[in-house]
Amino acid sequence: MTNTSLKDLAKELNLSVSTVSRALRDSHEISPDTKEKVLILAKKLNYQPNPYARSLRKQKSKTIAVVIPEIANNFFSLAINGIESIAQENDYHVLIYLTHEDYEKELSIINHLSSGRVDGVLVSISSATNDIRHLEELHRKDIPVVFFDRISDNINTIKVTTDDYNSGYKATNHLIDQGCKRIAFLSISSKLSIGVKRMEGYKDALKDRGINVEEKLIVHTEGSPEESHNKIKQLLTDPNRPDGLFASVEKLAIASYHCCHELHLSIPKDVKIISFSNLETASLLNPSLTTITQPAFEIGKEAARVLFKGLDKHKTFLLNKSIILDSQLIERESTAK
Amino acid sequence: MTNTSLKDLAKELNLSVSTVSRALRDSHEISPDTKEKVLILAKKLNYQPNPYARSLRKQKSKTIAVVIPEIANNFFSLAINGIESIAQENDYHVLIYLTHEDYEKELSIINHLSSGRVDGVLVSISSATNDIRHLEELHRKDIPVVFFDRISDNINTIKVTTDDYNSGYKATNHLIDQGCKRIAFLSISSKLSIGVKRMEGYKDALKDRGINVEEKLIVHTEGSPEESHNKIKQLLTDPNRPDGLFASVEKLAIASYHCCHELHLSIPKDVKIISFSNLETASLLNPSLTTITQPAFEIGKEAARVLFKGLDKHKTFLLNKSIILDSQLIERESTAK
Repeated sequence: MTNTSLKDLAKELNLSVSTVSRALRDSHEISPDTKEKVLILAKKLNYQPNPYARSLRKQKSKTIAVVIPEIANNFFSLAINGIESIAQENDYHVLIYLTHEDYEKELSIINHLSSGRVDGVLVSISSATNDIRHLEELHRKDIPVVFFDRISDNINTIKVTTDDYNSGYKATNHLIDQGCKRIAFLSISSKLSIGVKRMEGYKDALKDRGINVEEKLIVHTEGSPEESHNKIKQLLTDPNRPDGLFASVEKLAIASYHCCHELHLSIPKDVKIISFSNLETASLLNPSLTTITQPAFEIGKEAARVLFKGLDKHKTFLLNKSIILDSQLIERESTAK
Repeated sequence: MTNTSLKDLAKELNLSVSTVSRALRDSHEISPDTKEKVLILAKKLNYQPNPYARSLRKQKSKTIAVVIPEIANNFFSLAINGIESIAQENDYHVLIYLTHEDYEKELSIINHLSSGRVDGVLVSISSATNDIRHLEELHRKDIPVVFFDRISDNINTIKVTTDDYNSGYKATNHLIDQGCKRIAFLSISSKLSIGVKRMEGYKDALKDRGINVEEKLIVHTEGSPEESHNKIKQLLTDPNRPDGLFASVEKLAIASYHCCHELHLSIPKDVKIISFSNLETASLLNPSLTTITQPAFEIGKEAARVLFKGLDKHKTFLLNKSIILDSQLIERESTAK
């Protein structure tokens, strides 16, 4: 097999070598359409950039970074284990950076990384992040970025998630099947990809079963644990309180349990609860918690796998693409009839 | 106030300037006794190394590393939050490295760090680590090391822990007070500092209450979760099974709950359980779990605080010292009479 050269690509596409080269470098001077054409052909012909030139371009740090909002969360600890298993195979170190759901902190970390201290970055964005220019900038600087779990659709790279919309739909349907008539949706952000998609699933499930979507049953608690606690308590002390809670993240399920205990509301008799969760103690809780469980370890592994593919070949092989791994609904006592 | 110089120290101690300088650099050519004398006087006279020479010696990375065994553990996630709160005040980034309880992994991370990628390191050693030469080497290379939680007594720096011995004593006494006659001790390593000290407390409490220490009630499960599960199950299916379990780490309490549920043993009727734990769901478990709760956030903060003191002044200000923060016994249903 002969190697495909820049010249081959240029000839086939009827473009100049310089245009093809700039397209592969994701240059701003080249139109998105042309880039797409070049990338697709490069992939098809298995184009490999000149390894000598590539190694000159950059000295490898043999390190990747994982930028996540928090670690007191079983999803992220499992995902990191998945990431590390792949990094180890590739003889790479993994650095973990925490943003604590703070946009300024995320910005500072990404700027710090853009000096070339790592070869690639896996990101799950903070709930406070609206503007992703810092991540685009990093990706453009030839430090490949792959998203997992909390993604932005506005960046041209690979995103690895679960089927957030379907899972939200399934969870809501399950609560309706178990007899709930007024279901509240709890989330930590009105903007975060996971919150938005899970909420869309929730809303569509309600509509499909002929239940009105009530805005006051949708609770976003972007602040402190105290704020979450207070907002959930307020919801549960309303005379017309919900009979079902769908927590889109684990910590809101824990807060809901605490509130129910405090208010002497019985789970599942008075309120049924389902949550996205990888909590190790879900089956040991009082009562055991019905969960939508993400394949967290596999999500981490897959994100790392595609990042290393990008490092091995060329960043531009990280085409805009979504990789979706299914979650599982595990029925337990908290939603029993 | 005039600044203390190397010459002042040398004169006061009747040593040569070169000896004092080498003692402050922790050189092997100087005896431990002499080093100790020099360090104590340097501290007393508030000796500050020449800042110009210091800044020449090393360019700051404005980054510290935290090397821990795992993150799916609430103690470590809280400790990291404490560490980050101090790092943020100092405008430093925190890198988190996981050893997964693997000595080779720890060695590789520490060697990686010794190239000067960070200014200082906080370590909680892996359960598989017996030989700490890699950590001594790092500390000697002018990259200060501070230990927290899982420490080694054989390195000349500061260690921040809880009162492991007293907590072990208190936990065992509590089980005896609640009526237990055969108490098993569960740990993840026969060598790890926390395991050893907590076990000493356990043994002494038994002796002081006139109960024999039985070696077969002391279970070390150094391997996989499956191994832990099997060993605990074996213990609980013994005809002469224990009526109390003292888990020295959180994950062994969770494994014990799973085993009891599986074997239809009632907690606390058949078996009472107490555990070192910072589990957020401890009070929500079925039944709620009695814990020895460490001030994890404060331990992280304190370890970071002393490390930054060492960075700010001089590594050698990190004298051999133990800082001990008290844990709290929180009584819940799992040890009810």
